[in-house]
Amino acid sequence: MMSKFTAAVDLGSNSFRLQIGRIVDNQIYPLDGLKETVRLAAGLTPDKLLDNAAQQRGLKALSIFAERLRDFDATAVRAVATNTFRVAKNAKAFLQKAEATLGFPIEIISGREEARLIYLGVAHTLPNPRQRQLVIDIGGGSTELIVGQNSEPIELESLYMGCVSYSLRFFPAGRVDKSNFRAAELSARQELQSIVHAYRKTGWDEAIGSSGTAKAIMDLLEQNKLSDHGITQRGLNNLCAELIRAGSASRMRLQGLRADRLPVLPGGLAIMSAIFNAFDLERMAFSEGALRLGVLYDQLGRYHHHDMREVTVNRFMQRYEVDRRQAARVTQTALSLLQQLVPATREADNSDAQFLVWAARLHEVGISVAHSSYHKHSAYILSNADMPGFSRRDQARLSRLVLAHRGKLERINPLEKNASEWTLIFCLRIAVLLHRVRDDQVLPPLDVWFTKVGFQLEVGDGGLDLLPLTAAALMEEAKQWSAVGGELKIQAKP
Amino acid sequence: MMSKFTAAVDLGSNSFRLQIGRIVDNQIYPLDGLKETVRLAAGLTPDKLLDNAAQQRGLKALSIFAERLRDFDATAVRAVATNTFRVAKNAKAFLQKAEATLGFPIEIISGREEARLIYLGVAHTLPNPRQRQLVIDIGGGSTELIVGQNSEPIELESLYMGCVSYSLRFFPAGRVDKSNFRAAELSARQELQSIVHAYRKTGWDEAIGSSGTAKAIMDLLEQNKLSDHGITQRGLNNLCAELIRAGSASRMRLQGLRADRLPVLPGGLAIMSAIFNAFDLERMAFSEGALRLGVLYDQLGRYHHHDMREVTVNRFMQRYEVDRRQAARVTQTALSLLQQLVPATREADNSDAQFLVWAARLHEVGISVAHSSYHKHSAYILSNADMPGFSRRDQARLSRLVLAHRGKLERINPLEKNASEWTLIFCLRIAVLLHRVRDDQVLPPLDVWFTKVGFQLEVGDGGLDLLPLTAAALMEEAKQWSAVGGELKIQAKP
Repeated sequence: MMSKFTAAVDLGSNSFRLQIGRIVDNQIYPLDGLKETVRLAAGLTPDKLLDNAAQQRGLKALSIFAERLRDFDATAVRAVATNTFRVAKNAKAFLQKAEATLGFPIEIISGREEARLIYLGVAHTLPNPRQRQLVIDIGGGSTELIVGQNSEPIELESLYMGCVSYSLRFFPAGRVDKSNFRAAELSARQELQSIVHAYRKTGWDEAIGSSGTAKAIMDLLEQNKLSDHGITQRGLNNLCAELIRAGSASRMRLQGLRADRLPVLPGGLAIMSAIFNAFDLERMAFSEGALRLGVLYDQLGRYHHHDMREVTVNRFMQRYEVDRRQAARVTQTALSLLQQLVPATREADNSDAQFLVWAARLHEVGISVAHSSYHKHSAYILSNADMPGFSRRDQARLSRLVLAHRGKLERINPLEKNASEWTLIFCLRIAVLLHRVRDDQVLPPLDVWFTKVGFQLEVGDGGLDLLPLTAAALMEEAKQWSAVGGELKIQAKP
Repeated sequence: MMSKFTAAVDLGSNSFRLQIGRIVDNQIYPLDGLKETVRLAAGLTPDKLLDNAAQQRGLKALSIFAERLRDFDATAVRAVATNTFRVAKNAKAFLQKAEATLGFPIEIISGREEARLIYLGVAHTLPNPRQRQLVIDIGGGSTELIVGQNSEPIELESLYMGCVSYSLRFFPAGRVDKSNFRAAELSARQELQSIVHAYRKTGWDEAIGSSGTAKAIMDLLEQNKLSDHGITQRGLNNLCAELIRAGSASRMRLQGLRADRLPVLPGGLAIMSAIFNAFDLERMAFSEGALRLGVLYDQLGRYHHHDMREVTVNRFMQRYEVDRRQAARVTQTALSLLQQLVPATREADNSDAQFLVWAARLHEVGISVAHSSYHKHSAYILSNADMPGFSRRDQARLSRLVLAHRGKLERINPLEKNASEWTLIFCLRIAVLLHRVRDDQVLPPLDVWFTKVGFQLEVGDGGLDLLPLTAAALMEEAKQWSAVGGELKIQAKP
């Protein structure tokens, strides 16, 4: 059952945020939240390594969150990490420390998945979802741009520009002049160029900003009477002119300028200005809905069986023209083996069972590229494609399962010996092997259990004698398991 | 114009063959041919290296072919290499020596491309192409199986089993007994298992064998009155029984047993027997048409504008839902740049122009996987997919062009400095850059020519001022070329 409280952690490139929500009648009521301005993206060295100081700032923030989350179940917390984690070459090592500090797993999500979740958060705050929205979220390291309607995204994109990275790149030491502001704007225009045409063709009724940058700009404009409400083209122009005149954000003579926004305002303003120009915007409203709210709603959806990952798996089977009957056969056999081995996987929403089923349904997507070595192509697609609802780690896990479903076990990257992944791989391999003929003939009864270092499989109804090809294939499979120090004992059921 | 004579070289795993043909009225009349039993696959070490002795046998055969081909134009000769080249880890080094010896380029083709060409060869020898055929070609290292009708393949597969590799694996020193013959048959049945169901569903009217193995078995059966014509189930069973009884091919008491077939007969017979069982065949006819004839007809097709590669490019644009209008814009601009730089590329069938056009039409196939880093996904697909008509080298070339169409030039594997590939990459990159907006606005006039170490591009009609984003992108592109020691000068056309 869903716990009454739920939490989302957003490890952004500018700030880390924790949002607690209370679930009432399938709706989320945001309760308290925490925000730590970590400025993680500022710790990226030119060769894309996250420096130690930034890591320490991040871990400190997470230790604060950890205290607040002390009494939360693992299933009630979802933590996602965005652009800086996507690009830092040492992200993996830092992620381990971060998870240890937070006490919950952290998912690195792709830019388009981030865009999807932002839109999900924003869509739940809109008074009129039937209008078509252009949603802009300028983050610390990336900017997400979405066109959507009725809570469904139509266009999704994540561009590699953010208020932290642009401020560092174009305004070193915070100094702003006409020339470097123009250079920053031009660079942002170039990033936007590839999507503007398609977005304008799709069109929108209202533009909505949803990040700290949008909020800071709106506050500045409204408090200084540069705009009546929201962000306007004219107000934005005035603000940019004032920034250039002042020469730095800290010297601007304006009300409501928060100290923690000063270092990232020039980059954020340049990107916002480029967006207004590229999309020819007159006005932008602001929504408090954001990534962290989207994560909460996505989590809620999974508990109510609107799991986005199910939708994605179905779409992929269609897009890559998977043989559905074969996928169904393999799924059924693999799952029944797993449920015999690990009775707990019979429970609804068991994660191992879910991943085994998804891997079984998707293991042949690579045939769309080429038949030979198709398992490698399947693994390539599953680790590189945009898969709404799946984190990078989810995709990596699916990809590993699918890669291991045939061929030499020795080639699989070493996993821990007793990792449950070996069990999933075993179930998938045996199911694929048993259904190699791709027909609907009923399989002989199978009993399976763990031995000390592997598995034992008993085949009933004289199957080993009646199906000599399958018997031979099982014998070869047994050799595969011996070769990696495991075991697979095959015998006829007495 | 097509030369009157044309030649195909087939570097198989058992024998190398040269076939000369004469072209009359769009038909090929096979003239003389040469055959050298190289037994290349026997030189594969357990770790898949081609040993020196086998390489020497191969080079000797090619030097003999080279003499016969001395007066042939480059365009009149096509040489293809099959399974042993596909699997040998040192194939690349050997290929260079082989090409130097033969004096013509040699293409390594994929198993399914081999199957397609075999069927093309066989289809041209059939009295009634409207019948549906199952064509079986047991080679030295692989076996191709095709179902086709009216000269169009319906099912194509290449399995990793051949008369040389099976003879070495199951019958060391040529010794045959009941047990190892059964093991070889069973192994072949397992290879066949994954395709039998689909092939039987597709069905066929007649089975046709097309390799040296099929010919040898047919000759043995007919000359020893074990079959009235072709290969029959009963005759095959008798032959297998006789081989097991004799204990080795050389001790069989039969007419018409050619010495050069003795070492590979046991493996070939076991595979043929498995095929008869798996497909439940009663009889198999023999066709002289084979890979080398298919290569000749494919070559002829290219000259008569039925280029299979064009068909494949079109199919890929469809399958991967390429934006055809954008592809057309990029193609047109890229080609016009190339034709300015290298006037010879205006000629029909110029290979550089062809590859540039194909790359421009296919550069966005990877978007079907994911938008971010889509050029890498495009390159992955183009180097791994089955692309009928394209050799492995063709695919590698296309893949390199597409990979280089955006991003850092430094990341491209080093090519020779003056390689024409740099010119194609330049044309494709500039065209993609100029059409980034993806609309139909007419480009300003462009003049381009070579400088000492790079390119100069003049933009007319004030384009550099009117299109500041494009101008900025061109300046960045110029930096890319400097970074790899080249140059790109951009200026306004006076």
